[in-house]
Amino acid sequence: MRRRARLLFPCLLLAAAPAVAGGIGSRVFVVERESQSLAVYDFMERELLRQRIGGLGNLRHATMIFSPDLRYGYLATRGGQVSRIDLATLERAGEVFTSKSSIDNAISQDGRYIATAEYAPGGVTILDAQNLRVVKRHAASVSRGDETLPSRVTGIVDAPGNRFVCVLMEGAEIWVIDASQPEFPIEHRIATPQDMPYDAMITPDGRFYVVGHLESDRVSVLDLTQPERGVRDVSLRDPSRSYAREAPVKLPHLASWAVAGRWIFVPLVGEKRLAVLDRESFAFERSLPLRGHPVYAVRSPTEREVWVSFSGEADDAYVQIVDTQALAVTDTLRIGGRIYHMDFTPRGSHVLVSANRENKLVLVNATTRQIEDVQELNSPSGIFGVWRAFRIGL
Amino acid sequence: MRRRARLLFPCLLLAAAPAVAGGIGSRVFVVERESQSLAVYDFMERELLRQRIGGLGNLRHATMIFSPDLRYGYLATRGGQVSRIDLATLERAGEVFTSKSSIDNAISQDGRYIATAEYAPGGVTILDAQNLRVVKRHAASVSRGDETLPSRVTGIVDAPGNRFVCVLMEGAEIWVIDASQPEFPIEHRIATPQDMPYDAMITPDGRFYVVGHLESDRVSVLDLTQPERGVRDVSLRDPSRSYAREAPVKLPHLASWAVAGRWIFVPLVGEKRLAVLDRESFAFERSLPLRGHPVYAVRSPTEREVWVSFSGEADDAYVQIVDTQALAVTDTLRIGGRIYHMDFTPRGSHVLVSANRENKLVLVNATTRQIEDVQELNSPSGIFGVWRAFRIGL
Repeated sequence: MRRRARLLFPCLLLAAAPAVAGGIGSRVFVVERESQSLAVYDFMERELLRQRIGGLGNLRHATMIFSPDLRYGYLATRGGQVSRIDLATLERAGEVFTSKSSIDNAISQDGRYIATAEYAPGGVTILDAQNLRVVKRHAASVSRGDETLPSRVTGIVDAPGNRFVCVLMEGAEIWVIDASQPEFPIEHRIATPQDMPYDAMITPDGRFYVVGHLESDRVSVLDLTQPERGVRDVSLRDPSRSYAREAPVKLPHLASWAVAGRWIFVPLVGEKRLAVLDRESFAFERSLPLRGHPVYAVRSPTEREVWVSFSGEADDAYVQIVDTQALAVTDTLRIGGRIYHMDFTPRGSHVLVSANRENKLVLVNATTRQIEDVQELNSPSGIFGVWRAFRIGL
Repeated sequence: MRRRARLLFPCLLLAAAPAVAGGIGSRVFVVERESQSLAVYDFMERELLRQRIGGLGNLRHATMIFSPDLRYGYLATRGGQVSRIDLATLERAGEVFTSKSSIDNAISQDGRYIATAEYAPGGVTILDAQNLRVVKRHAASVSRGDETLPSRVTGIVDAPGNRFVCVLMEGAEIWVIDASQPEFPIEHRIATPQDMPYDAMITPDGRFYVVGHLESDRVSVLDLTQPERGVRDVSLRDPSRSYAREAPVKLPHLASWAVAGRWIFVPLVGEKRLAVLDRESFAFERSLPLRGHPVYAVRSPTEREVWVSFSGEADDAYVQIVDTQALAVTDTLRIGGRIYHMDFTPRGSHVLVSANRENKLVLVNATTRQIEDVQELNSPSGIFGVWRAFRIGL
């Protein structure tokens, strides 16, 4: 209907209405893994927009960041491709290959630079956000005796003071990069006490950078307000429980941690429990029993609740809701098979959930717990709302 | 130049480019009191847009809220007029008079309703945000013996669970209104222990509603997660200092309080000190000496710093910066005469400051403390960035 009207009166309608219906602020980009595309959902209109953005390459572990003026989104993909999306027209607006294999990206606090963390060749590439030109490349390496070997880089985030922070996997070193200086110098190089960092996160206030290590139950915590003090080594194991010494240790993605109220909530892989740490000291407070193996913990903007998703067919359609004051599960909801991602709308009225096996995007009312909208998508996974533009570390 | 081009090729240009340069996300609306207009500044482009929005009525204590889809801003003015502004075209897009005298407005968590707090006739009016129709009016009154007298209403905010919260001045009663029910019922009416509430604020997590009382050094604190427990009565006076019993007591606007880290920072009017309260218990921690009488305390998104402005010609061009870990002043900056308002950009890279006497809007780099841009405005006061759309209680 709308399409036909445009053909008849192209000038008038283009002048009167934007190219795409609805407002920019309530748009959510959802990765459709199988079709290598992004779908766009408007949570105010409660509709899937007609436009789909395709040709984006391998979208496994794809992350999307947004410019502060909400003109663009930037998608980093595993194939080393950064694609820029025009948020008004929902069309691709430039792309650049920064490497053969990238894992993560971040936008500087002032919105002027994009940094990508790369596996091959290992390093960090910094792009001008306006023209997508490469302005700096830091190759990452590690010395082994007389040899210098390349290192992969992961976990790149923006941090206060217009810094980027990332970690070298083989290099076992955290880098703090100053994005306000012309040469983007590596201001601090801080060794981690353990080998093989594989992922990292920053707390929402931009203070602590937390690094996970392969096959370890300990994380490295760097206080970015005092980087010269180096990292603290923190255990995630419940001291009141016994563990087999040789039991294999797996950690979840650190992006799955939730910081809420006085606490940090950590999904423990291989255990049906959620660890609760003190937000400032990282001291272990307790662990909470859950119905299954947790994957993601996501905080409400009120910080009163954390919603937890699970792995395994018996549990992965469910969400459990933890009260952050009572430190107890208060609700269990069935939403849809193989929940991959959850995000609250910015003021916390609703939660968006992608149910990958059931090919659904679900809008849940956070107060009533009722499902208020369901949209059909093709193998949905990551959910990226434009309001990430206004949050530290996203 | 652009204007002439439009006259020549109206269709093509309107189709190809938006009506206004730049992106929506970095726009800041600044009240120009004397000319009863709004100026629009883009902090990414660092320019004042050509468009000014006029004819808005008395803009003293004007507040501006934004729809979640970033299509509209809504300005409440003292004359009882709500003006809607189209955020893409920067033109007025509807207005409605809800009373003869209003003081405050708020948008519901789900973005569907606007509520205004009114002095005359006293009450709350709820509007449909889409069509600006009045959907409910709650008249406010107070019983005095056999008489029922009208009461003014102030301090209206949105709260989690899709509620509005406000306070009756003569009625000395807090109302919690459920904006998810058809009749917008007043779900709780909670008496305040003292008379004459005159202002209120909600903490950024939406948990505590704090009410100030005229000529009192005590505030009423309501925990919105347990409204049935009623309010707590909290003193703002430093117990380690002595006060003349008869000394007049003045309190600042509660919107000037800053919640950061573990603390709440309260400008004490009539004292050259900033009070520090515990964020959860509201226990008095200490008070910090300042160079002058504080007016506003504004937190950085990092919660590491609070910027404080002052009253009085000797001090009102200065900002003092308080470190929220050390609880000490770390910097003093001269920015411009009669600072009326400050706001951080969403990730905390910069601070916007209106210097009313010097007719300036100033952009300060929050890391280097350098002034990076100055724009000339006509008696600037309130500063409202569109990212308020994504924050509880704004």
